[in-house]
Amino acid sequence: MADRPSEFALIAELFAPLATTPGAFALSDDAAIAPVRAGHDLIVTTDALVEGVHFLAGDPPDAIARKALRVNLSDLAAKGAEPAGYLLSLSLPQRIDRTWLEHFARGLGEDQNAFGVPLLGGDTTATPGPLSLTITAMGHVPAGAMIRRSGAKAGDGVYISGTIGDAGGGLAVLQSGGGPAELIERYRLPSPRLALGRALRGVASAAIDVSDGLLADLAHIADVSSVRISVEAARIPRSAALRALWGDTPAAIVHAATAGDDYEIAFTSAHEEQVMEAAGQAGVSVTRIGHVEQGAGLVVHDPEGREIAVARAGFTHF
Amino acid sequence: MADRPSEFALIAELFAPLATTPGAFALSDDAAIAPVRAGHDLIVTTDALVEGVHFLAGDPPDAIARKALRVNLSDLAAKGAEPAGYLLSLSLPQRIDRTWLEHFARGLGEDQNAFGVPLLGGDTTATPGPLSLTITAMGHVPAGAMIRRSGAKAGDGVYISGTIGDAGGGLAVLQSGGGPAELIERYRLPSPRLALGRALRGVASAAIDVSDGLLADLAHIADVSSVRISVEAARIPRSAALRALWGDTPAAIVHAATAGDDYEIAFTSAHEEQVMEAAGQAGVSVTRIGHVEQGAGLVVHDPEGREIAVARAGFTHF
Repeated sequence: MADRPSEFALIAELFAPLATTPGAFALSDDAAIAPVRAGHDLIVTTDALVEGVHFLAGDPPDAIARKALRVNLSDLAAKGAEPAGYLLSLSLPQRIDRTWLEHFARGLGEDQNAFGVPLLGGDTTATPGPLSLTITAMGHVPAGAMIRRSGAKAGDGVYISGTIGDAGGGLAVLQSGGGPAELIERYRLPSPRLALGRALRGVASAAIDVSDGLLADLAHIADVSSVRISVEAARIPRSAALRALWGDTPAAIVHAATAGDDYEIAFTSAHEEQVMEAAGQAGVSVTRIGHVEQGAGLVVHDPEGREIAVARAGFTHF
Repeated sequence: MADRPSEFALIAELFAPLATTPGAFALSDDAAIAPVRAGHDLIVTTDALVEGVHFLAGDPPDAIARKALRVNLSDLAAKGAEPAGYLLSLSLPQRIDRTWLEHFARGLGEDQNAFGVPLLGGDTTATPGPLSLTITAMGHVPAGAMIRRSGAKAGDGVYISGTIGDAGGGLAVLQSGGGPAELIERYRLPSPRLALGRALRGVASAAIDVSDGLLADLAHIADVSSVRISVEAARIPRSAALRALWGDTPAAIVHAATAGDDYEIAFTSAHEEQVMEAAGQAGVSVTRIGHVEQGAGLVVHDPEGREIAVARAGFTHF
């Protein structure tokens, strides 16, 4: 898992306690045995986080660890999967020291306990560049029950969990020097909607977790499902804190819906009653924001039914 | 899998043809279904490569892609596993363009065909730092048959495949401006010993692929197996090209055995005849270089039986 004797000792000390499943061999081997479950598909997903792109250099190490795990769990959530394990690949700049790693491991440990997902293995290396970490997460769904991106059908409703734009607002606030802590918290620490994802199996026709931005991610569903998605801007749920920060104009709503990093679940379904039941079971608010129709692409309407031009459909990392 | 519309289109065009298994959904989803096989364990491993640490900035993109895949397949090989799929996480600096990505995808495609291992999914992001890539590879072994690091026993022989130090020599040659192409090739393009790993199931008591350096990696086996490993320096197999480059002194041998990046399989076994049979089946040379005894740690002897001091047990990335 690592490159030099002292680092081996440190990683063993800090990370081995997180390898709480027999298949991880306490991180003493080159490889692990994946947590396969009879009658289930094993869902795998991977997401990388880079300092200065997905988090800020000054972010607390425990928050970085937790965000890396949570954005991967969010992918599992949108597929209806229950987390079963993860691999962690860490590229560390010279300045990272023992204290940093201790806080990082503590944050990771807290979250893996909270979400019931053991560390299976990983890799640690040095980098002359920014801190980077890649997590590969695995989860279970009953065989054939993974919620795909490609199942949206004309006539389905379009739904979103929670509120949109808070993480984008939090980032703006961090970059400008100060503002509501609840928005910063949403940027630093997304909440993977695992209970909702599970409850949406067999209910949602398509789902995606919102990382690029609500409109960009809905456009992905429209694209792979070969349908058009129509969204009513005024229905997009936004928190009081974000509305106070950015206002209620169409431009502010589009800003929220393209900011990204929300890690809410956007989904489609033909079964409104079951959707609301799933939301109740999961204890998460769910809002209907539009519908699916024949055609292609994504359209956004204002309250008067006029189409809003959306120039920038998602946050551009690359 | 990516962050902006144009990048989506490019990744889809270049990488989707590599997603040759139904569970990869042609890279159109957030997640894939892992290739589970009845009666088998699914082995998972992850390794990151960073520009300037694991490869050089000027290395050809197809060689970078192939090396990233091969070092992960090498981990599977040492565990006796047959490759079944992989996830790729790419962090790309601004200078990476379409031509670079085309060559990268071509190299990846050639190797995944050669090794029979499909792309399952991944993630692409920008980085302000060096090019980095993390691969998570999966493979199958019959249930319970994974070759561990921890099974070495007193009385076992210690073996190594191929020759040692060539990659280290290749790196030295690249850094100094010129030298034998075969050494550079060994640095750029390791050969995962998959056939040998398979043939060693039930024969090897412990195995590891040599990435940190032969002596460091044997020390890992000694450590987790709670045994001492004794190596005869003169028996460590080195190519004619490397001997011409570095000579035959004890210091040169230790240099080769600590250079790392060999991706040969170091292993222990009580069954010499079966080891040689496995080597023959796999068409790979295997050399007995020492033995396992009671105790702890690693000792290296010269031809007169004197212990050689090894100050630096492995290549230090970190």
